[in-house]
Amino acid sequence: MKIITISREFGSGGRELGKRLSDILGFDYYDKEILAEMAKNKGMDENYLGNMLDNHGWRNIPLMYHHSFAGMAMPFNQADIMLEQKNVIEEIAKAGKDCIIVGRNADVLLQEYEPFSIFVCADMEAKKKRCLERAPAGENHTPKEMERKIQQIDKNRARTREIITDSEWGAACSYNLTVNTSGWEIKELAPGVAEFAQRWFARTNK
Amino acid sequence: MKIITISREFGSGGRELGKRLSDILGFDYYDKEILAEMAKNKGMDENYLGNMLDNHGWRNIPLMYHHSFAGMAMPFNQADIMLEQKNVIEEIAKAGKDCIIVGRNADVLLQEYEPFSIFVCADMEAKKKRCLERAPAGENHTPKEMERKIQQIDKNRARTREIITDSEWGAACSYNLTVNTSGWEIKELAPGVAEFAQRWFARTNK
Repeated sequence: MKIITISREFGSGGRELGKRLSDILGFDYYDKEILAEMAKNKGMDENYLGNMLDNHGWRNIPLMYHHSFAGMAMPFNQADIMLEQKNVIEEIAKAGKDCIIVGRNADVLLQEYEPFSIFVCADMEAKKKRCLERAPAGENHTPKEMERKIQQIDKNRARTREIITDSEWGAACSYNLTVNTSGWEIKELAPGVAEFAQRWFARTNK
Repeated sequence: MKIITISREFGSGGRELGKRLSDILGFDYYDKEILAEMAKNKGMDENYLGNMLDNHGWRNIPLMYHHSFAGMAMPFNQADIMLEQKNVIEEIAKAGKDCIIVGRNADVLLQEYEPFSIFVCADMEAKKKRCLERAPAGENHTPKEMERKIQQIDKNRARTREIITDSEWGAACSYNLTVNTSGWEIKELAPGVAEFAQRWFARTNK
């Protein structure tokens, strides 16, 4: 089984790269699907869960939080949510199908499977441009606000990784390959990443 | 003209990757050749110059240093040496031939040519193993000593880069591609890097 994991700076095009790799290689693709599964298992609202993880980070989740869903008050805590995330990602791996997993530190959680781990980054200007162009209707950030949002989300991603591993978020040596998407289109670079990943899976030095 | 630059952690296999890319792509290869040219132009000893740059860093070079060579006392200073390095690297680019340049922050010095810039890293264990296996005859470091040597050389490389640019040494976003060589052989991954670089040169989004 071949697993590719993608960690990424917010706005760097990591998700688009993941989708394109999935198309090129014919691998299953997991991103929001993980959140949806977690939300279902825990009886939480998916959008709420995603927003909480992306925008606030683990450390800001109240230890016991009562979230009303379907008329019930339910308790959640950090460890509970992290464990559920781990379970969902391990279930994906156990299914045994070639796949691409975006985010959620899947590279760390699935170490034993020797995934090909990618980190995707870009210049701040490129990230701001990408985010402003693709902002959902109704979201109107100035470039300065967008920069702060990008920095905040990435800070939370780094902190989340810190909790489960000493493999530093965004550091070159934490991943097999780090791709800077500035200066070209994701569709131009994706086939090169796919070829490189295939070489990893075919390597003899295991 | 296509230029590939390689920055690397000491012991990560960056030089071997450069040589293999040169073989695969048929590009000229520059590494020690730069030192040799600098040494010739300045009337310095090549080994002395290389040792000084690798092991001591710019900040430790005395501002006016009198080095006896061929019976003459000659003055050198930091700015002088950095300027000479810049000149030699620019001469290589001006020659107009496809090439690979290892080290010396060529990616920064040749920005206007839009080189494909690579950073090569590896786990400390892999770097120590590589260095100990390839140590010159007569050099007998313990693994602990080798680790300190690796850290010291990389610290100097980072500082040298700091002097000429705000593009941080070893940071993901300072390069187009960062390759972690741990877990496979350079000969297994080099063709993938070559393919990826060719896509950069063929990109339409310039």
